[in-house]
Amino acid sequence: MTTRSIFDNISPLDHRYSLRKDEFEDYTKYLSERAKIRYQTAVEAALVKALAEADVCSTEVAQEVEEAVKEIKPQEVYEEEKKTKHNIRALVNCIQQRVSDEAKPYIHFTTTSFDIVDTANSLRYKESAEELIIPTLKRLEEVLMEIALREKETVQIGRTHGQHAVPVTFGFAVAEYVSRLGTRIEAVIESSQQLKGKIAGAVGAYNASHLFFDDPEEFEANVLAELDLEAGIHSTQIVEPEYITDFIHSLVSCFGVLANFSDDMRHLQRTEIGEVGEHFDKDQVGSSTMPHKRNPINYENVKSMWKQFMPRMMTLYQDQISEHQRDLSNSASSRFIPEVIVGLLSATNRLIRTCEKLVVDQQRMEENFNQSKELIVAEPLYILLASLGHPDAHEAVRKLTLEADETGQTLRELIQQKDELKPYWEQLSDKQKKLLINPEQYTGLASEKTEKVVQHWKEKLDIN
Amino acid sequence: MTTRSIFDNISPLDHRYSLRKDEFEDYTKYLSERAKIRYQTAVEAALVKALAEADVCSTEVAQEVEEAVKEIKPQEVYEEEKKTKHNIRALVNCIQQRVSDEAKPYIHFTTTSFDIVDTANSLRYKESAEELIIPTLKRLEEVLMEIALREKETVQIGRTHGQHAVPVTFGFAVAEYVSRLGTRIEAVIESSQQLKGKIAGAVGAYNASHLFFDDPEEFEANVLAELDLEAGIHSTQIVEPEYITDFIHSLVSCFGVLANFSDDMRHLQRTEIGEVGEHFDKDQVGSSTMPHKRNPINYENVKSMWKQFMPRMMTLYQDQISEHQRDLSNSASSRFIPEVIVGLLSATNRLIRTCEKLVVDQQRMEENFNQSKELIVAEPLYILLASLGHPDAHEAVRKLTLEADETGQTLRELIQQKDELKPYWEQLSDKQKKLLINPEQYTGLASEKTEKVVQHWKEKLDIN
Amino acid sequence: MTTRSIFDNISPLDHRYSLRKDEFEDYTKYLSERAKIRYQTAVEAALVKALAEADVCSTEVAQEVEEAVKEIKPQEVYEEEKKTKHNIRALVNCIQQRVSDEAKPYIHFTTTSFDIVDTANSLRYKESAEELIIPTLKRLEEVLMEIALREKETVQIGRTHGQHAVPVTFGFAVAEYVSRLGTRIEAVIESSQQLKGKIAGAVGAYNASHLFFDDPEEFEANVLAELDLEAGIHSTQIVEPEYITDFIHSLVSCFGVLANFSDDMRHLQRTEIGEVGEHFDKDQVGSSTMPHKRNPINYENVKSMWKQFMPRMMTLYQDQISEHQRDLSNSASSRFIPEVIVGLLSATNRLIRTCEKLVVDQQRMEENFNQSKELIVAEPLYILLASLGHPDAHEAVRKLTLEADETGQTLRELIQQKDELKPYWEQLSDKQKKLLINPEQYTGLASEKTEKVVQHWKEKLDIN
Amino acid sequence: MTTRSIFDNISPLDHRYSLRKDEFEDYTKYLSERAKIRYQTAVEAALVKALAEADVCSTEVAQEVEEAVKEIKPQEVYEEEKKTKHNIRALVNCIQQRVSDEAKPYIHFTTTSFDIVDTANSLRYKESAEELIIPTLKRLEEVLMEIALREKETVQIGRTHGQHAVPVTFGFAVAEYVSRLGTRIEAVIESSQQLKGKIAGAVGAYNASHLFFDDPEEFEANVLAELDLEAGIHSTQIVEPEYITDFIHSLVSCFGVLANFSDDMRHLQRTEIGEVGEHFDKDQVGSSTMPHKRNPINYENVKSMWKQFMPRMMTLYQDQISEHQRDLSNSASSRFIPEVIVGLLSATNRLIRTCEKLVVDQQRMEENFNQSKELIVAEPLYILLASLGHPDAHEAVRKLTLEADETGQTLRELIQQKDELKPYWEQLSDKQKKLLINPEQYTGLASEKTEKVVQHWKEKLDIN
Repeated sequence: MTTRSIFDNISPLDHRYSLRKDEFEDYTKYLSERAKIRYQTAVEAALVKALAEADVCSTEVAQEVEEAVKEIKPQEVYEEEKKTKHNIRALVNCIQQRVSDEAKPYIHFTTTSFDIVDTANSLRYKESAEELIIPTLKRLEEVLMEIALREKETVQIGRTHGQHAVPVTFGFAVAEYVSRLGTRIEAVIESSQQLKGKIAGAVGAYNASHLFFDDPEEFEANVLAELDLEAGIHSTQIVEPEYITDFIHSLVSCFGVLANFSDDMRHLQRTEIGEVGEHFDKDQVGSSTMPHKRNPINYENVKSMWKQFMPRMMTLYQDQISEHQRDLSNSASSRFIPEVIVGLLSATNRLIRTCEKLVVDQQRMEENFNQSKELIVAEPLYILLASLGHPDAHEAVRKLTLEADETGQTLRELIQQKDELKPYWEQLSDKQKKLLINPEQYTGLASEKTEKVVQHWKEKLDIN
Repeated sequence: MTTRSIFDNISPLDHRYSLRKDEFEDYTKYLSERAKIRYQTAVEAALVKALAEADVCSTEVAQEVEEAVKEIKPQEVYEEEKKTKHNIRALVNCIQQRVSDEAKPYIHFTTTSFDIVDTANSLRYKESAEELIIPTLKRLEEVLMEIALREKETVQIGRTHGQHAVPVTFGFAVAEYVSRLGTRIEAVIESSQQLKGKIAGAVGAYNASHLFFDDPEEFEANVLAELDLEAGIHSTQIVEPEYITDFIHSLVSCFGVLANFSDDMRHLQRTEIGEVGEHFDKDQVGSSTMPHKRNPINYENVKSMWKQFMPRMMTLYQDQISEHQRDLSNSASSRFIPEVIVGLLSATNRLIRTCEKLVVDQQRMEENFNQSKELIVAEPLYILLASLGHPDAHEAVRKLTLEADETGQTLRELIQQKDELKPYWEQLSDKQKKLLINPEQYTGLASEKTEKVVQHWKEKLDIN
Repeated sequence: MTTRSIFDNISPLDHRYSLRKDEFEDYTKYLSERAKIRYQTAVEAALVKALAEADVCSTEVAQEVEEAVKEIKPQEVYEEEKKTKHNIRALVNCIQQRVSDEAKPYIHFTTTSFDIVDTANSLRYKESAEELIIPTLKRLEEVLMEIALREKETVQIGRTHGQHAVPVTFGFAVAEYVSRLGTRIEAVIESSQQLKGKIAGAVGAYNASHLFFDDPEEFEANVLAELDLEAGIHSTQIVEPEYITDFIHSLVSCFGVLANFSDDMRHLQRTEIGEVGEHFDKDQVGSSTMPHKRNPINYENVKSMWKQFMPRMMTLYQDQISEHQRDLSNSASSRFIPEVIVGLLSATNRLIRTCEKLVVDQQRMEENFNQSKELIVAEPLYILLASLGHPDAHEAVRKLTLEADETGQTLRELIQQKDELKPYWEQLSDKQKKLLINPEQYTGLASEKTEKVVQHWKEKLDIN
Repeated sequence: MTTRSIFDNISPLDHRYSLRKDEFEDYTKYLSERAKIRYQTAVEAALVKALAEADVCSTEVAQEVEEAVKEIKPQEVYEEEKKTKHNIRALVNCIQQRVSDEAKPYIHFTTTSFDIVDTANSLRYKESAEELIIPTLKRLEEVLMEIALREKETVQIGRTHGQHAVPVTFGFAVAEYVSRLGTRIEAVIESSQQLKGKIAGAVGAYNASHLFFDDPEEFEANVLAELDLEAGIHSTQIVEPEYITDFIHSLVSCFGVLANFSDDMRHLQRTEIGEVGEHFDKDQVGSSTMPHKRNPINYENVKSMWKQFMPRMMTLYQDQISEHQRDLSNSASSRFIPEVIVGLLSATNRLIRTCEKLVVDQQRMEENFNQSKELIVAEPLYILLASLGHPDAHEAVRKLTLEADETGQTLRELIQQKDELKPYWEQLSDKQKKLLINPEQYTGLASEKTEKVVQHWKEKLDIN
C-alpha cells in the first residue's frame, strides 16, 4: 500500500501537477510526508545535541542519535504508529530502537509531541522559504523585470474599467507587477524569518524541563539554535499560531498578485485585443474541436489555482483558535499547509516558463492605441483648459467629446473652431500643443518610472 | 515517475489519510485521476453507441470502441498529452490508436472537450454519491440512530451557553444529529441526482452536431441516457455550474453537522464533564509525554477536517463565474473537487468507527445532572407561577434563585417560606408538585421525540 | 441617539446604498431592526392566539394582545433592555406593560427566547422571499427574457478562453442567464419555503409546554400555523441551522449568476469589443479626469457587491456549529443576515435598471464576428472531414489554419488546392458547403434554443 | 431621507451595536460616510496647498480652499452626485461652488478620482489606527496584563484536548493572550504605517501632472507630506492593493486572538468548570425562561462577531485583482472596510468592559485541579524514570496510570510497591520527590514566565 501509481492519487498535486521531475523533487524535499518526518528527526537530534552540550548526556550519545535518525524511514514510523496510535510516540520508539540503551532515555527528553512537530514545521517552512519559495519568486521577478525594461518604451493604451484611458507603456504595466511581487517577496522573507520553534513542554510552562534545568528557557534556546530558530515570547502546547498565519498570508497575498497579472495577460490575449501572446509549440493543440484556437491556458491555470488556494487562508484563521493550552482540532487541518506552498510554487514556475516566452504584438498594440488616439487628448485638454482658468473645463471637454464622436472631427480641430475655446488654445506652450497633436507622447513618466521601479526592487531584493 | 512511495506525496489525502486499504480503494474507484479518465472513456464510448443507434456508424464500431476504451491506461494518455498539450485530444488519440480505421472518425464525433469532461465528472460524482457517499452517510445515520434509541431514557442535563439548563436525555441530544444528518443526506441525494451532462459542442449551441442531426438535442439526450444522465436546460461550453455548486454545498453543509456533533462529543469528554468516551485500545498512547491522557482525537480530527474542507466552498462560488461561453479559469480548481468528497468520506468513516465504540458514563452524567438538580426547578416554577397569575414570575424566581445560591436552601423550600409565594404552591396539582420535587422527570418529550425522530428518518431514508 | 443622519452610519447599506426611497422602504419593511421586532411581536401574539384556541386563556386576552403588540416601538424595547440586559425579556416586559393583569401571564407562556427569535426570523425571511426577493428576481428574469428573445437572431461570435470560437447569437448568450437565474429562483423558492419555526422551549424537548399540554407538538404546530409556518423534525434551543444555511446558499449562488452576467457585460463593453452598452444620461460623468470615458459602472458594482457578500456564506457554515443544546456564538453573527439579502436585492434592482437600457451595437458585433469569420470554418471543416473518414482531420485542419494565417487565404480556398483534401470537399452536400461559405449561419440551434429556454422558464416560474 | 431612526437601518452596526454614545462617536469620526467625505476634502485641500508651495497658485487660494472644504456637507455632495452620477466629480463641483473663480481651476488639479479616494482612505485608516484602534487594543492589553500579574501564582490545571494535563497558573494562561495580542498590536502598527497615498493620475504614470511639473513624483510627495503619508513604489489608477490587504489581515488575525480568548473564557465558565465569571448586574436577566442561568454572553458575542468579520478577508483577497490599470469592481466592496474595523473595535471594547470585571473562582479552580492531582504526577514520573535510565518509562507509567485508575491508589504509592520501579524512586533527589508529592508545585516557570511576558510587551508597546 505504500507504493502506488500516481494515477491512484486523489490530489491533483500528487498526479497531474507533479509530473515535472525537477519541480516535484524540490517540492517533496520539504513538503512531503517523508520530509516532515525527516525534519522531526532533526529536531529530536538537535535536542540530544543540546543535552550533550549541557552535560546531561555524553557527546557520544548525541553523535549516535544524530547518525541513527538519518536511517529512519517513514514506513517504519507508520508501522510503529499502528501500535501506538500516536505518531510522535511512534517516531520516538523508532529512534530508541536504533540507539544504545545508554542513549534511549535522552530521546525526546522532557519534551512533548508538539515541541517536535511545531518546531519541525517552522523549520521546514522556513527552509523551504529560504531555499525554494523565495528563489523561485525572485526568478519570476527577474523575468518580469526583463520584460519591463525591454518594453519600457512600448506605448500601450492604458485601460481603466476595460475602457481606453490615457497611454502608458507596456513596460510600465509590467512594472506594476515587479513592484507588487517585490512587496510580496519582502513579506515572505519577513514572515518566514519569524517562524518560531518551542521546547517548552506539554503546556508551555517548562514543567518537565524545569525538573532538570535551572534555566529551561536557555535550554530551549540552545536546542533551537542548533536549528537556526528562535522561540516565541510565549507558547502553550503549541507555538503561537499567528506566525504561521502571517506566513501563509504572505503566500496567499502573493498568489493574488500572480492571479492579477495572469488576468491581465489573459485579457490582453483576447482575440479583439491580441497585444500579447504565449509562444506555442508546433504540435500543441488549442482546442479538441476548434483547431484554430490559441488559448491562454497557462494564465487561466494560474488564476484557477489561486481560486483553489486563496480560500485556504480561512483554515489558518480558524486554526488560530485552540482551546486552553491547546485542543487538537488544528492538527489534521494544518497537515494540508504544504499544499498551499506547492500550489503557489506550481503557479510561479508556470508563470516563469510562460513569461520567458511572452511575446508582444507591437502592431496590435499600436492599432489598439490608435483606436482611441484622438479621444486621449481629452484629458490633457481638460487639464490645460482648467489651468488656463476655464471655469468648467471638464464639462466643456465632455461636450466636445460627444461632438467629436458625432461629427468625426478631432478634438484639436474642434477646439480651434469654438469661439469660446480658441483663446485658450492660443495660450498653450509649443510643448503642450505638440502633446495634443501627438497623443502617443502623452505617457507621462511611464518609461522613467519603469526603470526606477525595477532598480528599486533590484536593490531591495539583491537581484542583479 | 508514475509510481512512487506515498510518503513522497504532498496531500495528506494521498499519504496519511489513505492508509486504510478498503476505504482508499473505495475513494480511488471514483475520485482518483485513473477514475476520471475511466469515466471520460465511458462517455466517449456512450457517444459512439448513440451514433450507432442513430445509424451514423455501425453497431460493430460501437462495440469495438466500447471494448477498446477498457484498455486505456492513464499512463498512455499522459504520455500522449506531452505531445498534444491537451488532455482530451490526447485521450481521443489514444482511443483512435486502439480502433480500426473505420471506427476512428466516430471517436469524439461533433463534441468538444468539455462535453466529455463535464459529463464524465457529473457521472462519477453522481455514482460516487449513489454508491459511496450516501451509503456511508446512511451507515453513520444508523449508528447514531442506535445510540439515540439506546439512550433515549438516559437523563442528561441540557446545556445552553455551556451552562446547565433544563434536562434532556442523551438519546434526545443524539436525535438532533439523526435529524440534521437526515436532512443533509436528503440534500446530497437530491443535489447529486441533479448533476447534468451535456453533448452540445464548443459553445453549447450544437453547432457541430447540427451538421449531422435534425434534432441534436435528441441526440444529446440519447448519449446521456446511456449514462443515466440528463442534460440541463442550457449549456455553454460547460454545464451550468450551479448543479455542482449545489452538490458541494450539500456535502459541505453535511460536514458542518459532523463537525458540530464532534464538538459536542469532544466537550462531553472534558475531564470535568466526562459523560461520554471513546473506547481506547489497550496499547494506544494518549500523549507522548502525559501517559494519563485520554484524548478525543477522532472528534478533534473531524472538526479539523471540516476546517480544511469547508472553505473550499469559496472555490465553487468563484467558479460559478466563467466569462462568455466559458473561460478556463475553473479548470485547475475543479480538479480538486474529489478532495472535498474524500475529506467528507474520511470524516464520516472515522465517526462511524468512533461512534460504534461510543460509551456513555451514566454515573458521571447523573452526577453532573445532580449538580444543578435544584436550580433546574427554576424554569417550571417560574412558568407555573406565571400560569397561576403571578404578575412578575420571572423576577420572583430570579430573586429566589439568588437566595437559594446564598443560603443553600432549595427553591421548593424557599417558596413555601415566602408568604407571597406560598399560596401559589398550594394551587399546584400533584403532578406539578411532583415534578418540582423530582427534577429528573422534567425532561418533557425527550424520550418520545427521540423515537419519533428516529422513526421519521428511518422511513424517509429507507433505513431498517 | 436613535435618530441620526444617514451619513453618520457605518454600513454603505445604511447610507450610499439606501438612497432610493422605494427600494429602501421595501428593504426596511422586512430587514431593519424595526421589522425584526415587529415580527417578534407577531410571534408572541400568535402564541397567545393559540393559547386561546386551546382554552388556556380567553379569546379576549388574545385579542387584547394582538392589539397591544401593534403599539410596541423599538425604542421602548431597547430602553427596557437597558434594565434587563436581555432583548426578549425586554420585549416581553414591554408587551406585559401594555396588557391587563389577566393577560400578563400568557405573554411568552412556556416559551424560550429563541422560540420567538428563530420563528420570527424564519417568518420574515420567508415573507421577504415571497413578497420581495422572488418578485425582484423574477422582474430581472423578465428583462433578460425580453433581451434574449429580441436578440435571438443577432449573430455574435462565441468566445471561449477570451478567444473567438464558433458563433452563437446574443440572445442565446443571454438565454444562459435566463436559465441559470431560473434555477436559482427555483432554489430560492424551495429553500425559503423550507424555513421552519419552533415552539419547543429552552432545549427543544417541550419541557415547559409539557406541563400544560398533553400534546405539546400539536400546540407548537398550532402556533406556527397562525404564521403559516411549520416546525422542523427536531429542534434544540434553536431551529436546525441547515434551513437558513440552505436559504442563504440559494441567495449567494444566485448572486454568483448576477456576477457572471455582469462580468460578461463588462467585457463586452471593452473599448476593443464594444458590443453592448449602458445607456448614459446626458449629464452623467464617466471619469473625473477623462471626460471621454464610458464606464460599465453598474456591472462593476454588481461584481463588487458579490465579492462583498459571497464570503458571508462562511459565517453561515460556521454558525452551523452550536454546542450542545446551543451556545450563543451564532447570535451576533446571524444579526447580519439581512445585509446579505439587501446586498442581493440592491444588485438585482441595479441590474434591472441597467438591463432595461441595455443597448446592442449590432455593427460592432458584426465587425467582431467578421474578424474570425474565416477561421470559424475550421470546426465544421474538421468535423466534416472526420465524418468522411479522414484519418486525422483535427491535425489536418490545424495545419491548414496555420497556413491560412500565414498566406491570408481562406480555409475553403486552401482545401480545394490540396490534393489530399479536395476529394473530401467534393463529397460534401450542398448544405454543408453552404455553411462553410457562410459562417454566419453556423450558429447551430442558437435561436431555437433561446426560444425554448425562455419558454421553459416562463412556464416553470409562471411568468407571462 | 437623510435623517432616519436607527431602527430603520439594516446593519446591526448601525442600530444595535451603535448604542454606546462615546464608542459610536469614536467610530463615526473616522469610519462613517461623513468622515470619508471629510477626509477626501482634506486631500483636495492638501493638493492646493502643495500647488501654492510650488507657486502654481497663490497662498491665498490655498487658504481659501482650506477654509472652504470645512464647510462641505455630505448632503450637498450627494445632492450634486444626482446630477453628475460621479461622486468625486460631485465633490469637486461642491468645492468649486464655494471658492472664488481664481481658485476654481486648482481644485482637483491634474488628479484623478482615485488619487483622492485612495489617499483619503489610507489617511483615515492610518489615523483611525493611530488614534483609535491601537489605543483601544492597548487598553485591552493592559487589562489582560493586570489579570496576568494578579493571577500569576493562581494554580490552574492545564488543559489540552479538553483534558487535564499538567498545571499552569491562570496568570500564565492569560499571558498567552498578552503575548498574542502584543504581536497583533505590533502587526497593526506596522501595517497601518505602511498605508500609502498616491497623486499619480488616471493610470499612475503622472500623465497629467507631467504637463506642469518637471518632477511630478516630487509634487506627489509634497501633497502626501501635507497629510503625513508617503507614496508607494508604483501605482496605477489606484494604490497597490497589498497595503490595505496587509492592514486588514492584521485586524482579522487580531480578531482571531480575541475569539480564542473568548472561547477559553466561555469554556472556563461552563457549569462543570466554573473557574471564571463575568460579574453580573443585579437586574440582568440570564435567560428569558431559565432565571438561574449565568451566560457568558459577552464572550459569545465576541466569538460571534469574529465569525461575521473574519470571512471578510476573502473580499480583500479578491479585491487584489483589478484588471489592467484598474477596473472598478473593488469599489463597492471596499466601501465596507469600515465595518471590519468597527466590528473589531466593538469586540475589543466589549472585552475591555468584561475583563475589567473578570472574576476568578479560586475555590473551583483548586477543586478542578485536585480532581487530577494524582494523575498529574504521571508526567514528571515518566520523565524522571527515563532520565534514570528506565528503558521504557512511558509505557511503565501508562500501565501504572491504568492501575491507579482501577485500584484508587496514587502513583507514588504504586511505584514504591513495584520491585521494578522502587530502585528508581530511591535515586530521586529530595526536590524531585517533593514535586511528586506536591503536584501543585509542578507549574514549571508559569509564574516567572508570566512576569517576563508582561514585561516584554510593556516595553515593546510602551505601556506603563
